[in-house]
Amino acid sequence: MTNGPRTARRVPAGAAVLREDVTDAIRAAVFEELAAVGFARMSIEGIARRAGVGKTAVYRRWKSKLALVLDLVSVFAAQGLPAPATGSLYGDVRALLQVASAALRHPVASQVIPDLLVESARNPEIADTIRATLLDGQQGIAAVIVRDAVARGELREGTDPDTALDVIVGPLYWRLAVVRGPLPKGYLDQLAASAVAALRHG
Amino acid sequence: MTNGPRTARRVPAGAAVLREDVTDAIRAAVFEELAAVGFARMSIEGIARRAGVGKTAVYRRWKSKLALVLDLVSVFAAQGLPAPATGSLYGDVRALLQVASAALRHPVASQVIPDLLVESARNPEIADTIRATLLDGQQGIAAVIVRDAVARGELREGTDPDTALDVIVGPLYWRLAVVRGPLPKGYLDQLAASAVAALRHG
Repeated sequence: MTNGPRTARRVPAGAAVLREDVTDAIRAAVFEELAAVGFARMSIEGIARRAGVGKTAVYRRWKSKLALVLDLVSVFAAQGLPAPATGSLYGDVRALLQVASAALRHPVASQVIPDLLVESARNPEIADTIRATLLDGQQGIAAVIVRDAVARGELREGTDPDTALDVIVGPLYWRLAVVRGPLPKGYLDQLAASAVAALRHG
Repeated sequence: MTNGPRTARRVPAGAAVLREDVTDAIRAAVFEELAAVGFARMSIEGIARRAGVGKTAVYRRWKSKLALVLDLVSVFAAQGLPAPATGSLYGDVRALLQVASAALRHPVASQVIPDLLVESARNPEIADTIRATLLDGQQGIAAVIVRDAVARGELREGTDPDTALDVIVGPLYWRLAVVRGPLPKGYLDQLAASAVAALRHG
């Protein structure tokens, strides 16, 4: 009964086909609802109304608003990129910052994920999904960047990849998600250079 | 009618005195409600019930739940410290990280402020209060740290204090508020050293 959106193209024998245009309309409505009222206040009724469908159309696809939002985050996270492998630590850090700054300005990251981080303090299922879909990927990329830099002799053996990720992504996250300030021209170049200096020193 | 909590000690001629133990009980109840249900779901009814007072006792002190929460943030921010002035850039950065790590592990910062940051995306009054009470203070401290370091010849003239704040506080914020990971032994020392390297290079 609760076909996930990824299986929407399958036509189960004897079962109703889930129309993809309806699935897309519901997803778009979820974004708008999240931006307008936030996760806590959002309801399946409100989503259905905004999407112009009945509540049943939503429940046929996702069993709850939590499942709906976690699915959106997973789809977003699946767009994550492989480790950059540019051949230099500076190049890799600069590329990671480029991807991260685009991701952090995406509506999912700027509206939905901070909201879910707040919810995750009281809901372990949300916390686990955020960790599995977002942080594990970022930490994996940082681990590859550090490993390659150590192999090239650019970083000391034993450099901690988690601390490296803090140093690379933290300043950008603070600027975009907390201060909500602009990124001045050359900011990412400067951040990449200073992160490299920090990593080589630390 | 709506005496702020800061004026609770005044005894207006002919007006009822606001009992401070009731004010304190309401404030404590707000923390617990915020942790349990979050800003969006929190209600004056729920706060009053948890504090063991009537709704009128709350409304006599604050006109809305927004006013209540913004007042809590202001009280928290007023505990912020002056610039450290240790005599060295490393010492100043290390001291700022110490204060920031204590502040970020305080329930107001770990529960309430991320919640309000999310709300601030759709409520300019919240955004303005967060900016005025929290960011302006941090940016002021960073400006003093940078100015002193430039005067001592430790940093280049023209170093941007906002970027400096990103580099100093960003990694710690990412670790504590996003990853929600532990701070290993020596982490703040390492972060201070790498921030200094980043600032001198950047």
